[in-house]
Amino acid sequence: MRQATLALRSATVVRLATSNPGDTHALTAWLASNERARPRCVLGKTEGNGCVNDFTRGYASLVVEQALRSAGRLEDTSIIMSGGTEGVLTPHILVFADVAQDTPSVAGPPTALSLGVARTRDLGAHEIGRRAQVEATHEAVLSACRDAHLSPADVCFAQIKCPLLTPKRVAAAALPCATHDGYTSMGLSRGASALGVALATGELSRGDLDAAVERLCEPEGLSGFSSSVASASAGIELRHSEVFVLGNAAGSASPLRAAHCVMRDALDSPAVCRMLAEAGLSLDNGQLTPASQARVRAVLAKADPAAAVRGERTTMCSDSDLHATRHARAAVGGLLAGLTGCTNLYVSGGAEHQGPAGGGPVCVVYEAGEGEG
Amino acid sequence: MRQATLALRSATVVRLATSNPGDTHALTAWLASNERARPRCVLGKTEGNGCVNDFTRGYASLVVEQALRSAGRLEDTSIIMSGGTEGVLTPHILVFADVAQDTPSVAGPPTALSLGVARTRDLGAHEIGRRAQVEATHEAVLSACRDAHLSPADVCFAQIKCPLLTPKRVAAAALPCATHDGYTSMGLSRGASALGVALATGELSRGDLDAAVERLCEPEGLSGFSSSVASASAGIELRHSEVFVLGNAAGSASPLRAAHCVMRDALDSPAVCRMLAEAGLSLDNGQLTPASQARVRAVLAKADPAAAVRGERTTMCSDSDLHATRHARAAVGGLLAGLTGCTNLYVSGGAEHQGPAGGGPVCVVYEAGEGEG
Amino acid sequence: MRQATLALRSATVVRLATSNPGDTHALTAWLASNERARPRCVLGKTEGNGCVNDFTRGYASLVVEQALRSAGRLEDTSIIMSGGTEGVLTPHILVFADVAQDTPSVAGPPTALSLGVARTRDLGAHEIGRRAQVEATHEAVLSACRDAHLSPADVCFAQIKCPLLTPKRVAAAALPCATHDGYTSMGLSRGASALGVALATGELSRGDLDAAVERLCEPEGLSGFSSSVASASAGIELRHSEVFVLGNAAGSASPLRAAHCVMRDALDSPAVCRMLAEAGLSLDNGQLTPASQARVRAVLAKADPAAAVRGERTTMCSDSDLHATRHARAAVGGLLAGLTGCTNLYVSGGAEHQGPAGGGPVCVVYEAGEGEG
Amino acid sequence: MRQATLALRSATVVRLATSNPGDTHALTAWLASNERARPRCVLGKTEGNGCVNDFTRGYASLVVEQALRSAGRLEDTSIIMSGGTEGVLTPHILVFADVAQDTPSVAGPPTALSLGVARTRDLGAHEIGRRAQVEATHEAVLSACRDAHLSPADVCFAQIKCPLLTPKRVAAAALPCATHDGYTSMGLSRGASALGVALATGELSRGDLDAAVERLCEPEGLSGFSSSVASASAGIELRHSEVFVLGNAAGSASPLRAAHCVMRDALDSPAVCRMLAEAGLSLDNGQLTPASQARVRAVLAKADPAAAVRGERTTMCSDSDLHATRHARAAVGGLLAGLTGCTNLYVSGGAEHQGPAGGGPVCVVYEAGEGEG
Repeated sequence: MRQATLALRSATVVRLATSNPGDTHALTAWLASNERARPRCVLGKTEGNGCVNDFTRGYASLVVEQALRSAGRLEDTSIIMSGGTEGVLTPHILVFADVAQDTPSVAGPPTALSLGVARTRDLGAHEIGRRAQVEATHEAVLSACRDAHLSPADVCFAQIKCPLLTPKRVAAAALPCATHDGYTSMGLSRGASALGVALATGELSRGDLDAAVERLCEPEGLSGFSSSVASASAGIELRHSEVFVLGNAAGSASPLRAAHCVMRDALDSPAVCRMLAEAGLSLDNGQLTPASQARVRAVLAKADPAAAVRGERTTMCSDSDLHATRHARAAVGGLLAGLTGCTNLYVSGGAEHQGPAGGGPVCVVYEAGEGEG
Repeated sequence: MRQATLALRSATVVRLATSNPGDTHALTAWLASNERARPRCVLGKTEGNGCVNDFTRGYASLVVEQALRSAGRLEDTSIIMSGGTEGVLTPHILVFADVAQDTPSVAGPPTALSLGVARTRDLGAHEIGRRAQVEATHEAVLSACRDAHLSPADVCFAQIKCPLLTPKRVAAAALPCATHDGYTSMGLSRGASALGVALATGELSRGDLDAAVERLCEPEGLSGFSSSVASASAGIELRHSEVFVLGNAAGSASPLRAAHCVMRDALDSPAVCRMLAEAGLSLDNGQLTPASQARVRAVLAKADPAAAVRGERTTMCSDSDLHATRHARAAVGGLLAGLTGCTNLYVSGGAEHQGPAGGGPVCVVYEAGEGEG
Repeated sequence: MRQATLALRSATVVRLATSNPGDTHALTAWLASNERARPRCVLGKTEGNGCVNDFTRGYASLVVEQALRSAGRLEDTSIIMSGGTEGVLTPHILVFADVAQDTPSVAGPPTALSLGVARTRDLGAHEIGRRAQVEATHEAVLSACRDAHLSPADVCFAQIKCPLLTPKRVAAAALPCATHDGYTSMGLSRGASALGVALATGELSRGDLDAAVERLCEPEGLSGFSSSVASASAGIELRHSEVFVLGNAAGSASPLRAAHCVMRDALDSPAVCRMLAEAGLSLDNGQLTPASQARVRAVLAKADPAAAVRGERTTMCSDSDLHATRHARAAVGGLLAGLTGCTNLYVSGGAEHQGPAGGGPVCVVYEAGEGEG
Repeated sequence: MRQATLALRSATVVRLATSNPGDTHALTAWLASNERARPRCVLGKTEGNGCVNDFTRGYASLVVEQALRSAGRLEDTSIIMSGGTEGVLTPHILVFADVAQDTPSVAGPPTALSLGVARTRDLGAHEIGRRAQVEATHEAVLSACRDAHLSPADVCFAQIKCPLLTPKRVAAAALPCATHDGYTSMGLSRGASALGVALATGELSRGDLDAAVERLCEPEGLSGFSSSVASASAGIELRHSEVFVLGNAAGSASPLRAAHCVMRDALDSPAVCRMLAEAGLSLDNGQLTPASQARVRAVLAKADPAAAVRGERTTMCSDSDLHATRHARAAVGGLLAGLTGCTNLYVSGGAEHQGPAGGGPVCVVYEAGEGEG
């Protein structure tokens, strides 16, 4: 019988606050009391600057890895840390886990949350921000979709953690690099990752690939080629890319579902409101009601710096004290926190080719209400 | 006849974008084409860090003063610049002006926008953050209310620009100062200014004054004593305080009105939504409709850093790279921009005794619809 | 008679501390008590971040211009402000002036301090960091040398203030720009300016010009083409470039002289010590003696960020909180302050093609001792 | 025989560059090839901001601890990380180790390098910056001196790593804390630690203790009470204080010796030159000769922010973008790097009660030449 097999797959997500990047107390406790959960991805926001020299990502990745290993639960778990919790945002980790289930789910939605992970090979410094990175990411996304039993077109959120360039890596590179500036390399790496997702989901055709790569992170390229579900973060601590996808799949017994939208710019609260409404979550006076807040398990979003928003100048891109992505995360985090009444949101900065320029993908994972799906 | 006299008083406000802190092109053009307007207050957001060494405030104040003088329009105009346009916020100036009117307004609202200004004497360095500053501000607020024909209890927004301490001023002080740290002095000065407003509006009683001053900027003081309409910014370029009040007064022929509210924390979009609704402005999917956006003339708000919001940790107050007020402005600016669909918002950081700790006053000036008032 | 004519030319320099970027008290006082001095260049260090959004330069330039004009002393005076006074450096301005002299100088040195200024035409946004900027600067340097009665090969220091790109300027550009990143444009503009100086002094041949421009600010270009006397600062407040040269010319009746050297890296105190020794200034235990300190009138230097110094890694170029030039100015400022016992040093950051990569030109202007020249 | 026993004690120090805060490759390799070395203290400079939210210290401390443990060499090793490698400074670790020695040293100096460590109990949040912290530190210093066979008066450098306050610690404190500002708490904690050293070395008398504690970090206190050998760093990752002392003791068979001095301000290169000369190290044109550079094993220094240096204003203490200690480390690091020709210097910021206000202790550990001691 089909149902018996399907019941083996269920997914959950838990949101755990951290007191500092080295804190794994809540994670260790959760693992101990959820013995049947198999962590597929730990996605975290750490409190560094989210830029080149943000070592809170590597620190948090290390301690999370050690905590999983100590608990005997480190399999092929993808550990992805994104730096930057500006404004009202709270440092936290999200544990996305598959959960074994004995009895078939009776009243679960027809499609429900399903998770998949994969990773690319190590990328050479000269491949960062180039076609080779797009292709490698594309393959990894397809692999993660198979893992999740998801059609690539049904992906709600595809999170990539990708490498960046440092002066040392540039100096040691086998071939000339796309840039020798570390901060610039972060954007290129995120952009190439997003094109890899777009290629997998069908948002970018093979025929347009050359044009897209050629205009990577150029204004024309950013407005022309993007994925509405890609979210990429660059980190100094890895050489390959980690890929994590989520969506609603048939055969998942999870009580959770995901919904997603694209903010067209940093002011696009209507897009988010519509997404929340589609998920059956209720707003009152511009904020989720307490009952709806309680059903939200995770909010994932990209925030993209822009020198102008709706024709008005911002100072994000000309502020030499404060990097553009810090500005963007703070602002979009403020908007989303207002709508959701919640501060532990995964808001990641720099959305090159991730949604339209200046905007970005948003995803909510929530407890499905009765009759939903 | 009463009406003829009243018609002499009307008020307006215009919002002018600036390309940099030294830019007065739009101001000069507006003055030329609005010859009957008498600028009472120029309130601006400049793109510095909004902290001790933010010289964009002094720079902008200087050029605005020179532009007004060149146009022969500098009378007792209060010029108040607040630094910090983080996130999506746009650097801009608001010109609040009285406008002479020949014919009596026929269908104006019973009460309408009215403006008043005043200034304190020069304050000694040792008076900053102390009772003397509270008292001096109190007197100036009462004076500004008389100027505006407003009862102090009807003030919708009271903006103060107050001095701060530098190492040099501390060294030259006649008596010991409340602090020798410049950044700390900004908070103390804003707090004392707010208590001065509270004393004037009746929100603080004379009997509580000693207790309030003693706990100035202390946690217990911040939660116990505040004004719901005070907004204070500290600047390095002045020794006295400037006071500017606005509210709805009988006898004003202005087509504009003000509404106000208090955000209880940085996530309090419901308070803002209610205020907008009271003003007859319509929200659709969490954002003002285009028609309502067109009726908004100015949004004024305070943003207050908090180490925790609704029980969740933020990193605002422990970030040594980025001052707490920059975090707070960015986040609250993002929320308000989402609600209003607008980025040239006056969001000022550090709301000590200005609304509840972690929250702050908000005010909207808007074109009154038919039959309103 | 030759001497009578020569006596008409003499030069001086005075160092004036400023309490903030808007402070011209000392300048106004100096102008009043030095009525025969004709300011040719006011060169200042202001206390901004020295990067894209440093408005202290524009602010200081404005008030200095107004002070000179108020005093009736603004002729073709070049006003050049460089941002960034990190570490022990003191914000200050240097007034370089020609001084009329009635009687021929009897015992002046055979060659002595002489000053010259010039300016380029306004440069298009698309010309920044390109050959057109090199050529325009080259012509202006030659013009300034003629003004100073100096052979280009005898220039001791050539200061350029050049424009930079902002998002707005890039958007409005007639043709594609060399970069759309503001901070990057500052380096390109400084580099092109330095090549213009090198072309004028003969350090760069016409034959190498194409190669140099093609590799502008590229690692190979930086190590191959540079001027040992160029010092360039980029500022948001101008569209053309200002050029100011100084050196020792025959026929100058000034009691001052200049000496110069090149630091090969940020640790090259021996080069500076040798320059001071050549100038007859005495060091004791690694610092100028009080008598020698009293003879120093100005110290001008460039500081260049480097990801490694003498093979050891630095964090200057990978620090996303603090721009590389701020690191470099602070370090080189600390070294020079230790050697000279003085903090009001003109140390400017970002020395692309100004001396060797990681190093930079240094110049001292001093009172010539007896029998010197 | 006395000599045989003495020969058991020898000390060494090695300087190991790190590629990032999580890098222990060089440490692991050194431990493997130095099996008889017993690490007593690992003292490191990490590349964070050195302020409240610098997690590179905790990260580096964790990986160093794990590397020592993996190598079976973690005994009572003190691990002290100081954040901030501004300017030309290189991130690195110093391993101070005791080395077992079979045969008595024949020609060693009469006194030579000797090391000692100790730690205080956990300090309550309310004890930070108060007398309890002074007393606890005092006892730990005495204990460390006994460990090093050193008279407290012969200590050349006493390094303390002490705790700081975070909003969370303040909120959870049993009693009111000395401050609720994290950055301020770092200074208070360093200052109290330094007074503990001064009490141990005799630089502070018991009779003056109350006066000193009462004026902790106040201008009068800073100028009146200090230790010329104390160096304190505050870190978020610990609750107790670690103490590490070094000096020249009779009975040490080490080929190394230490010398120390006090810089009276951030320009005091003469003090450092005299110290180097006393150590028999030769300067040429303001920099150690290559032969002398090769004999230097470690340079340890404190850098103290000051709003004015030798009467001239600096911007260190009024820069809201860049904390004062970052300014100070960069400047003093630049000066010391110029003198020593070396960038991997341990320069720690914030020298409250550590040497005179604005100055700080400096120590060099070097290979003793023939006949020295």
